[in-house]
Amino acid sequence: MPVNLPPTDPASILPVAGVRLGIAGAGIRKAGRKDLLLISLDEGTRVAGVFTRNRFCAAPVTLARSHIASTPARAMVVNSGCANAGTGEDGLLRARQVCEQTGRLLNCVTEAVVPFSTGVIMEDLPVDKINAALPACVQTLSANAWFDAAEAIMTTDTVPKAASRTLDVGGRRVTVTGIAKGSGMIRPDMATMLSFVATDAAVAGDALQTMIEYATRRSFNRITVDGDTSTNDSLMLIATGAAQTPEVSDADSGNYIALRDAVTDVCVQLAQMVVRDGEGATKFITVQVEGGRDEEECSIVAYAVAHSPLVKTAFYASDPNLGRILAAIGYAGIADLDVSTVDVYLDDVLVATGGGRAQGYSEDDAQAVMDQTDITVRIRLNRGSATVTVWTCDLSHEYVTINAEYRS
Amino acid sequence: MPVNLPPTDPASILPVAGVRLGIAGAGIRKAGRKDLLLISLDEGTRVAGVFTRNRFCAAPVTLARSHIASTPARAMVVNSGCANAGTGEDGLLRARQVCEQTGRLLNCVTEAVVPFSTGVIMEDLPVDKINAALPACVQTLSANAWFDAAEAIMTTDTVPKAASRTLDVGGRRVTVTGIAKGSGMIRPDMATMLSFVATDAAVAGDALQTMIEYATRRSFNRITVDGDTSTNDSLMLIATGAAQTPEVSDADSGNYIALRDAVTDVCVQLAQMVVRDGEGATKFITVQVEGGRDEEECSIVAYAVAHSPLVKTAFYASDPNLGRILAAIGYAGIADLDVSTVDVYLDDVLVATGGGRAQGYSEDDAQAVMDQTDITVRIRLNRGSATVTVWTCDLSHEYVTINAEYRS
Repeated sequence: MPVNLPPTDPASILPVAGVRLGIAGAGIRKAGRKDLLLISLDEGTRVAGVFTRNRFCAAPVTLARSHIASTPARAMVVNSGCANAGTGEDGLLRARQVCEQTGRLLNCVTEAVVPFSTGVIMEDLPVDKINAALPACVQTLSANAWFDAAEAIMTTDTVPKAASRTLDVGGRRVTVTGIAKGSGMIRPDMATMLSFVATDAAVAGDALQTMIEYATRRSFNRITVDGDTSTNDSLMLIATGAAQTPEVSDADSGNYIALRDAVTDVCVQLAQMVVRDGEGATKFITVQVEGGRDEEECSIVAYAVAHSPLVKTAFYASDPNLGRILAAIGYAGIADLDVSTVDVYLDDVLVATGGGRAQGYSEDDAQAVMDQTDITVRIRLNRGSATVTVWTCDLSHEYVTINAEYRS
Repeated sequence: MPVNLPPTDPASILPVAGVRLGIAGAGIRKAGRKDLLLISLDEGTRVAGVFTRNRFCAAPVTLARSHIASTPARAMVVNSGCANAGTGEDGLLRARQVCEQTGRLLNCVTEAVVPFSTGVIMEDLPVDKINAALPACVQTLSANAWFDAAEAIMTTDTVPKAASRTLDVGGRRVTVTGIAKGSGMIRPDMATMLSFVATDAAVAGDALQTMIEYATRRSFNRITVDGDTSTNDSLMLIATGAAQTPEVSDADSGNYIALRDAVTDVCVQLAQMVVRDGEGATKFITVQVEGGRDEEECSIVAYAVAHSPLVKTAFYASDPNLGRILAAIGYAGIADLDVSTVDVYLDDVLVATGGGRAQGYSEDDAQAVMDQTDITVRIRLNRGSATVTVWTCDLSHEYVTINAEYRS
């Protein structure tokens, strides 16, 4: 059960002109489950992407990087159930075989197909099953299948994650729609597990890359469930140009900024959905670090708090055992941190200041905040003007259950 | 229940001439529990220490540092139940009041008393209760109370932790005895939660400090339960000289090396006991990283594996879902790691090589290792000659239960 996340109305997820989606069940891990997604892109579409920095990155990540660098993309093929990571040379071969078959079916070159996988690491990609199911994906291609697509890429996710926005670009109505999957092994580094965001605006290639990096820094790279950076993290931004807008290129232009903010907004919504549906999550926690000398030091403090198993289990128990937050701030790694200048708030309750518990702090007030499902930890370092916000969840019995039983 | 740790026979824990220990119940957190320890040191004793680098370090840590720097130590006073951390100026005042009272009772200056605390963070130290119980500690001072002392400093520990060694130094029989406490908030940084190691050898001050730093690097600084570095970590090495040995001073001398190795051995035993008694632990895991360019890169890989909640829950489930280990190696932070040169073994089973699963790998073999309670993960980076070993435990439902309920 995701935390404070009302079900998405499938009708609210808008089609993007120039993008069609087809779904099939390939029986990769479980029979009868829709686990294969084909995204078909009209000619003239531009794509940009960010990928995991995990050195054991998956074979499809390596291939996707190389394909989008060499050839305009015409299709993306995504499977759940098998990550095709930790599979060496053989994994690359298998990912390529899926691209070849997709190219044959859609009448485009292999390099115009961008592959993605998610699921168990160090298992062989079942190419035969996938290639046998691809024709069914082609037959079901439809512009209205975004919500079903979000469902097809789920692994331990409990809900499909999708979001849409519309805006005006150069006098034309433009749509931004995105989907994401991810629930565990979430501490994205350059991107999340898997996410696809598309717009029908026309955007120059450089501007598209700048835009997705901007959005990533403010969304997927600001979340963590368990601190484990996946081998398969990939986020793609697709611009079909089908809305016939003027080409968005100048990073300072009004059109660029409007579209960038809409893309960022969709990414933040998706990223927060990933945390709200974090494995075993019962609380959604915003860690906001202010007054750092730079973003780097705000970030290490925010992640120290967001990753501490002791802080996370205290939230799970709704126990205002808030000294654990002080301990995490203290070991985060700011060598010259003067703790006597640090203020710690739980929502609006001042917990600690001057190196210790605040005068007038009442545990009843803190308890009232801890009993909520959405909580903000605000840490003021008071030594500069940088700010970073990170979103995370608690650590529950259910997290252990899910991850002790994932393969069985 | 600690992992594979037979109960320590109290008779095996040897007294150290020049050290006496007294224990009392001060009712700090729970009535009727022995929670106060006084260690009395004969005149001429030298002490050295290492302390947490947590910036929110506890008041007693600040005071202990300052006292041992200024004055030969004559006593140590240790309470469990309250960490006196995150308590600001008032915390320093309270720790000092306990030292004052101890000094009055033992007829020494305040600065000759070294204070230590462990327990809940950001709560006031109950000075009145402690000072009222100190006379009972003095009355019970005895050379044979090391095992009882180990019990008095426990918090979430399920067993007392103590170890002894004897050796010959300059023709005299010498004893090294140590105790430690710690079970959660364990990722020592310069020292563990609390540990006291004493010898009756005579050791020069500089040599004593070198020796404890050497031992710490190979023991307490190589363990982690949950990655949370405590605010109160302190490790003290005490040398009374009561065995009338020649003074051990030269770091290259045979006597120095023999004593250093005995101290290290006691520290390694205590550190491993801390992990075996890690909160909720059901497995004891050795992560051995070999063939790194330097210890630093071995260490970041070892800790990435040892801290990964996904790796830890897989061990808990005895599930050879070993791709999670590859993912942790990949995101550890070696930017130029060539994963095709990395070998991963589970005990003697070669799991991964050449960037993927090893030829001839059999999950049955891996399952047989996973079913054990003591497991070694061996990672060969094959890019240098440095080696680091880290000891950790799994992440179980019981860990969540303990830490969700610690204060209640």
